[in-house]
Amino acid sequence: MKAAATDNLAREKLRGTIKHELAEIFARQSAAAQAYGSEFSKLWSIATQHVLGGKLVRPVLMMETYDALVEDNPSQQATDRSTVLRIATAIEILHYSFLLHDDVIDGDLFRRGRRNLIGTLLDDGVNRLYGEVSQKGREDTALHWARTGGILMGDLLLAATHQLFARAEVPQKMRLKLLDLLEHSITESVAGEQLDVGLSDGLIMPDLSTVLAMSTHKTATYTFELPLRTAAIIAGTTQELENSLAMAGRYLGLAFQLQDDLISTFGDSEVHGKDAFSDLRERKQTTIISYARTTSTWPSIEANFENPKITVEVAERIRSLLDECGAKKFVRSLIEEQTSALYEVLVNAHSAHSIPPGARRLLLSYASELKGRAA
Amino acid sequence: MKAAATDNLAREKLRGTIKHELAEIFARQSAAAQAYGSEFSKLWSIATQHVLGGKLVRPVLMMETYDALVEDNPSQQATDRSTVLRIATAIEILHYSFLLHDDVIDGDLFRRGRRNLIGTLLDDGVNRLYGEVSQKGREDTALHWARTGGILMGDLLLAATHQLFARAEVPQKMRLKLLDLLEHSITESVAGEQLDVGLSDGLIMPDLSTVLAMSTHKTATYTFELPLRTAAIIAGTTQELENSLAMAGRYLGLAFQLQDDLISTFGDSEVHGKDAFSDLRERKQTTIISYARTTSTWPSIEANFENPKITVEVAERIRSLLDECGAKKFVRSLIEEQTSALYEVLVNAHSAHSIPPGARRLLLSYASELKGRAA
Repeated sequence: MKAAATDNLAREKLRGTIKHELAEIFARQSAAAQAYGSEFSKLWSIATQHVLGGKLVRPVLMMETYDALVEDNPSQQATDRSTVLRIATAIEILHYSFLLHDDVIDGDLFRRGRRNLIGTLLDDGVNRLYGEVSQKGREDTALHWARTGGILMGDLLLAATHQLFARAEVPQKMRLKLLDLLEHSITESVAGEQLDVGLSDGLIMPDLSTVLAMSTHKTATYTFELPLRTAAIIAGTTQELENSLAMAGRYLGLAFQLQDDLISTFGDSEVHGKDAFSDLRERKQTTIISYARTTSTWPSIEANFENPKITVEVAERIRSLLDECGAKKFVRSLIEEQTSALYEVLVNAHSAHSIPPGARRLLLSYASELKGRAA
Repeated sequence: MKAAATDNLAREKLRGTIKHELAEIFARQSAAAQAYGSEFSKLWSIATQHVLGGKLVRPVLMMETYDALVEDNPSQQATDRSTVLRIATAIEILHYSFLLHDDVIDGDLFRRGRRNLIGTLLDDGVNRLYGEVSQKGREDTALHWARTGGILMGDLLLAATHQLFARAEVPQKMRLKLLDLLEHSITESVAGEQLDVGLSDGLIMPDLSTVLAMSTHKTATYTFELPLRTAAIIAGTTQELENSLAMAGRYLGLAFQLQDDLISTFGDSEVHGKDAFSDLRERKQTTIISYARTTSTWPSIEANFENPKITVEVAERIRSLLDECGAKKFVRSLIEEQTSALYEVLVNAHSAHSIPPGARRLLLSYASELKGRAA
């Protein structure tokens, strides 16, 4: 089931609207930043370039869900569209704020194959320190400067997200629900990020349930649950419908995250566009690895990980072993489980609080994207 | 002019009340954190210990100012005291959030002579990684884990600050003023922090006006202007009085920061309790150094800074040269300027919007502390 061409067109238009709003918010902030000198202005202008390059997955999902819910229940008093748009944009700003701190923590200098904010500041810093000491000294200093920029811009955008939520022009009771949801999403994402780092650093045991919790908390919550529940709150649905959407979001979110893990490990980098074998090279604790660890193939897999440098040959060997030991099949079955659970929430049509047809169709179209993705 | 014993007693009592509120907020968050596993709980429990060790300077200033303003104008409708207390506590939480990200950026593992949150996580991490590789490898991994904890807890507390401001039980118009002020304070503090790092990393020229702007933005704004203006907003004063208090706060804030610079460089570490010569050792770009750079003594001072390790002897030599070249005297005169400007705001008694007697007395008592501090 592929979204119809008209839906795609509508989605493109929506993306354009959100991008425009995002650009306006950043333009206002950048203008205000000028009072604090050229370095602070530059930081905002780099952040603006990068944030506008995003795919806007989350705000698009939020607004599509909102529109579907309102269409399904036209008697409901609708929230002003500019308010809806602003909250959708706030969700993208939160996402970018998380990416920035993630990149600082992981030491990443690239995003989607291009220099990220930190990488851009690093290059600029190295160029400007040309009169200084050694090349190594220059790079270290510029990296410190660049990482500082990542931390500080992440802080500014986390603050901006809260400002947008706190100023939403909705009744106070609705605003408090939005603030509760924002708090929940941030707590859960931060807890997930801490788990992820603890797993990589070897301070937390990588058993399957922990890795699954990490995947849900770090990504699924704010990528799916947050947009769906925000839409429900602003559309003024019942608490029960909001809860059903939250559940659907968690199932979808985990399914997409598991799919991403499969793609990174087994997918063709020519197709998925990411760095080939990056998960293996970074020794990431994915569900695939957690499962493999419980099988008799693990010693041979582990032996390959002992190579200090994971070459293409080593990665391909690990990949075959992960397939052989049943890890690929196991993770596929987990994705099936999530989608079945999602369908169950969606077809629960007899309850008074079931997900109405428009929103159901939308969620099904997202679920169908899972099938089409190259694993 | 020393605060009377009764005032000190009242301040101690106020500090106790704030500490109690802070403990309650952290207890609630810590309880909620347990749902996300032991590492996340531990992060909260370490943060709780550290935040409760603070001197609570900012919330105390805020509440004292609020009380003085209300006493000066009893006809005004007072805000519920629990709301006032909660906002005061939010200011302390913001401060601790800034400290955490500052410590990550500066690589600091200590605060007030004891392990800070990052240092505590580092020690714990090193102990738990005992089975792993080399001592160096263990320390690097544990440091990564510890710095991640500092970034993430700073994020959680920045979010918590906004939640407390956004939920303040005051009229919406007042809440929006509080949110404006919070945004202004965060932008300015972050801009100041970026300047500070840019100066230290040699990416920003350390001229006097830049160093003064850095000192004002990084510390003075949120330490003095934020508490004073928050008090004014919640007490429902006129915009003009709020502006006067903001100005008074900036003068006081810069004076205290300059005094701190003098104390760190020229003070007796036995008296001020900080690491002796730490500013010199870290080659911090203070106003003292900026001034010295404009004098003919600078080449001799610079020659001493070329020592890779600043020993006590080298530091003492730099210290004498900084005194000789007039930098100490110059910074003292800047402090005098700030206090004169403060007095001018305070004695401007004929305007309808002048600072009323209680608040004036309070600000004078803070100014008098400047004289008593050991330089």
